Amino acid sequence: MSDDIAARVKDALRDLSIHVEAFLASCMADRDIPDALRESMAYSLMAGGKRLRPCLCLAWAELCGLERARALPFAAAIECIHTYSLIHDDLPAMDDDDMRRGKPSNHKQFGEATAILAGDGLLTEAFLFMTRAQSEPAQVLEAVAVMARAAGAEGMVGGQVLDMEYTGRVLAEEGDPVTLDQLRTMHSMKTGALIRASCEAGAVLACSGGVQRRLAKEYGAHLGRAFQIVDDILDEVGDEKSLGKPVGSDRDKGKTTYVSLVGLERSRELAEEATQQALHALERLTGVEPDWVDFLRDLAQYVLIRAV
Amino acid sequence: MSDDIAARVKDALRDLSIHVEAFLASCMADRDIPDALRESMAYSLMAGGKRLRPCLCLAWAELCGLERARALPFAAAIECIHTYSLIHDDLPAMDDDDMRRGKPSNHKQFGEATAILAGDGLLTEAFLFMTRAQSEPAQVLEAVAVMARAAGAEGMVGGQVLDMEYTGRVLAEEGDPVTLDQLRTMHSMKTGALIRASCEAGAVLACSGGVQRRLAKEYGAHLGRAFQIVDDILDEVGDEKSLGKPVGSDRDKGKTTYVSLVGLERSRELAEEATQQALHALERLTGVEPDWVDFLRDLAQYVLIRAV
Repeated sequence: MSDDIAARVKDALRDLSIHVEAFLASCMADRDIPDALRESMAYSLMAGGKRLRPCLCLAWAELCGLERARALPFAAAIECIHTYSLIHDDLPAMDDDDMRRGKPSNHKQFGEATAILAGDGLLTEAFLFMTRAQSEPAQVLEAVAVMARAAGAEGMVGGQVLDMEYTGRVLAEEGDPVTLDQLRTMHSMKTGALIRASCEAGAVLACSGGVQRRLAKEYGAHLGRAFQIVDDILDEVGDEKSLGKPVGSDRDKGKTTYVSLVGLERSRELAEEATQQALHALERLTGVEPDWVDFLRDLAQYVLIRAV
Repeated sequence: MSDDIAARVKDALRDLSIHVEAFLASCMADRDIPDALRESMAYSLMAGGKRLRPCLCLAWAELCGLERARALPFAAAIECIHTYSLIHDDLPAMDDDDMRRGKPSNHKQFGEATAILAGDGLLTEAFLFMTRAQSEPAQVLEAVAVMARAAGAEGMVGGQVLDMEYTGRVLAEEGDPVTLDQLRTMHSMKTGALIRASCEAGAVLACSGGVQRRLAKEYGAHLGRAFQIVDDILDEVGDEKSLGKPVGSDRDKGKTTYVSLVGLERSRELAEEATQQALHALERLTGVEPDWVDFLRDLAQYVLIRAV
């Protein structure tokens, strides 16, 4: 049964991401961008990956009744934001990672200056693409605000600052150890906010009022938490090939993880709890496209399966 | 007479920038931003400067009939974008500048990682602030698009890539020398685009149709060019105190400048020409607030005065 879910989710993600990739590829063509910059942006943007965040946005938009094509520019923009964050996180001054998705990281391939600028370019282009979503202008604006809040100083960027701070503390063996609460807050900003906002923005674009928007946000928040805990588990017990990086590399870098704080078994329980809460949000949806509810349910279960 | 103009412009910029600074200060307060990040963002954002770009946006918005308070969040956002670009340009991998506006540059004060993230944070917050402009949602969205295009890979970020490429060529004494056309294109992207877009976005926010928007863009493009040529002239003949950096520092870094390409006298002529073209755009405006036309005329002349 878990094989069935995995197969269904992979198929659905592949179908959705074909549209996202086609949009991204067309966006980068026919533009007056200096060659070195275009190449560096495209290198990371078209490096594959599951395209989870844009697919979440599309799924929630369609679930709430907005045609896929109308939400597509916005969904593609989210992938640009995610990609920029990976490029900047890999920089020598940050996590100093030489490899990403089995290829040299952006700064290894193009140099540090170009990598910083490719990230800046992707982040800025993202907001251009968002304005091209086809919905009520007031709703598009609201979705832009949701995304900027999630990606900015109170969200993803702030989370990266906390991550660096906590890691520095561990490596220097100074200060108080990181608590579970701090770890949770850090992750809800660093990775959770963008996943949550991808769902919420989909609902907002589809002009969905209070309840659906709230449930999208709730589902996204719990899914994001499950996703992060599973990531920490896989860092300990995953295999190098599917991880795309050595096992235990987070631990070696001084990162505090769910596993290092509460152990493997309790981490699995926490991931299971978060997944149940995500599913609970879906159960409370009414009057929406049932196929998309099925997809989002499968997706939440799939995230958990990886950790078992 | 040129003393009168300078005094008037300085007064007007000071009056406008009080509002911008108050808005920026209030934006950074009461937010759930990690302390280290907030401090680093505020350090550069509140470091003074003429606030030229937000003042241009406010002036064009008011000139076209939109109340100042309604455009203020958008104008403040433009200053966030400008500030982020200075932080990233100063990084060791880029221009490697230790000082900015008479203080240690952001990475000197807070370290490279925090400086990169402060820049990322400011750029992202900028798009949040833009959504708070009070005008027709479709117009706000269009103004966001204007700004993203100007700040992104086809504009400011692309211009910085070209600047690095040209500088590298000069320092390595390799490849063809930079031509006047290339220099002009590079500057129109790196510094011109944001100045032009500040004017254009003001008109767009005020729901101004074809002609006013086109004249705003034209004025901004010529003003931006004059501004850059004068900058190059001052790098040769200015005094260190008002420049905030050593005389000739661009030349020493391998930057090609208008002066290095066409000499001091021809550079002054080019600056004069650009200023005349900016003034010509203003002359063709009809049915707008005359006080703001006067301000924009003074401003264009003031830019030029500095170079004489």
